[in-house]
Amino acid sequence: MTDAPLPRLTLVLGGARSGKSRYAEELVLRADPPWTYVATAEALDDEMRERIAHHRDRRGADWHTLDAPLDLLGAIGGLPGAALIDCLTLWLSNVMFAGRDVEVESERLLAALGSAPGPLVVVSNEVGLGIVPETPLGRAFRDAQGRLNQRVAAAADRVVFMAAGLPLSLK
Amino acid sequence: MTDAPLPRLTLVLGGARSGKSRYAEELVLRADPPWTYVATAEALDDEMRERIAHHRDRRGADWHTLDAPLDLLGAIGGLPGAALIDCLTLWLSNVMFAGRDVEVESERLLAALGSAPGPLVVVSNEVGLGIVPETPLGRAFRDAQGRLNQRVAAAADRVVFMAAGLPLSLK
Amino acid sequence: MTDAPLPRLTLVLGGARSGKSRYAEELVLRADPPWTYVATAEALDDEMRERIAHHRDRRGADWHTLDAPLDLLGAIGGLPGAALIDCLTLWLSNVMFAGRDVEVESERLLAALGSAPGPLVVVSNEVGLGIVPETPLGRAFRDAQGRLNQRVAAAADRVVFMAAGLPLSLK
Repeated sequence: MTDAPLPRLTLVLGGARSGKSRYAEELVLRADPPWTYVATAEALDDEMRERIAHHRDRRGADWHTLDAPLDLLGAIGGLPGAALIDCLTLWLSNVMFAGRDVEVESERLLAALGSAPGPLVVVSNEVGLGIVPETPLGRAFRDAQGRLNQRVAAAADRVVFMAAGLPLSLK
Repeated sequence: MTDAPLPRLTLVLGGARSGKSRYAEELVLRADPPWTYVATAEALDDEMRERIAHHRDRRGADWHTLDAPLDLLGAIGGLPGAALIDCLTLWLSNVMFAGRDVEVESERLLAALGSAPGPLVVVSNEVGLGIVPETPLGRAFRDAQGRLNQRVAAAADRVVFMAAGLPLSLK
Repeated sequence: MTDAPLPRLTLVLGGARSGKSRYAEELVLRADPPWTYVATAEALDDEMRERIAHHRDRRGADWHTLDAPLDLLGAIGGLPGAALIDCLTLWLSNVMFAGRDVEVESERLLAALGSAPGPLVVVSNEVGLGIVPETPLGRAFRDAQGRLNQRVAAAADRVVFMAAGLPLSLK
């Protein structure tokens, strides 16, 4: 990691357990506080509750946490400074599960990302590198995620791909 | 993307919805026309029909389209100039579904790629980065695709890996 | 591939059929013999038997083979020189299937990797780049593999990501 100042929009892309969140947190800490953690996860079951608690413990008390499983746009508009959005994959999943229009919501998200008051680091999963998913829903999600990643990457100043905790610069 | 002239054989590798086709099209447009789009997709259902139409609309009228779901070799031999082969993953799937010998067909494909009249850009999916597929067919496809990608990559002058619409040079 | 001398610990990460084993073998051959192939695969069915035989034939007679489906630690301690551990994914799968504690075994493995007598090249799969696995076991494996890869990568002197037989330097 270089010591370059944090640009307006950074996308941290990678697989599950690739160290995305940790790396993204380190990036945000380069900006001046306050730091906001915008959480899109919903604690619907024990597995999720455990993950959320694990992440929260690691960040420590210096972070303000904002829960935004669906209203990411409202959350971004009211940020007091640098923020980490973790993650677009859960947000997209929440949007689809709520029956909202992915295309419309993606457009609005892109607009919100562009008008954030402080620097943003956005975490997202790459999910298209396995074999074709067996269910139509699996394929629809994979496609929607891929399209969203492309759009955010095109708008981002910097894009990193994480593997085994190590960043690879894409942009 | 640099402005380097298009080499004889380029492999554009990546996940689903990673921007492979779009990037590959941009590469082919660097060569002099005519440009041929060699389509391996078969419009077997509405999902495929929609994808094919979407890609065709984007390319516009300047491209000649050649359908070659199985006879990729015949198509390559008769090309009038630069071409995009989109994609090896569907072709391999068609070969396996038709009960043909993957090894024999791959050998013949490699020979055809080497004797093409004009520069070729070949699109293929990386499908081996998820957990082990549950079905024997899923594992067989993943393995065959991985082996084919290795062989085409070894023969290629240039190999790019796409993620979120951004190219990463592998060779 | 450069001609740099083999460091103490190298991690070769990649998807299925990405050329990991072949590349890792080439790395080990840069060290002085004897070379040991530490195999974590168990020949439980014909599919596995075939893969094991295929790999063994390729390496040839100059390699000493050590079977260590579970006791990777004992194997590492007794190595006579440079070695290839192929692979952590099967080892982790064996550990989980045997009902052992993944966290404890991972800690012990990391300690063993750090105290090996000769240079080690370790092969592991990246499995987190598909859609979310449907089964709890699938998700647990994906998470455990991702965490293990991060830890080994942090301890490694060099990490390469393989795609289509081509190495990409991560560290």
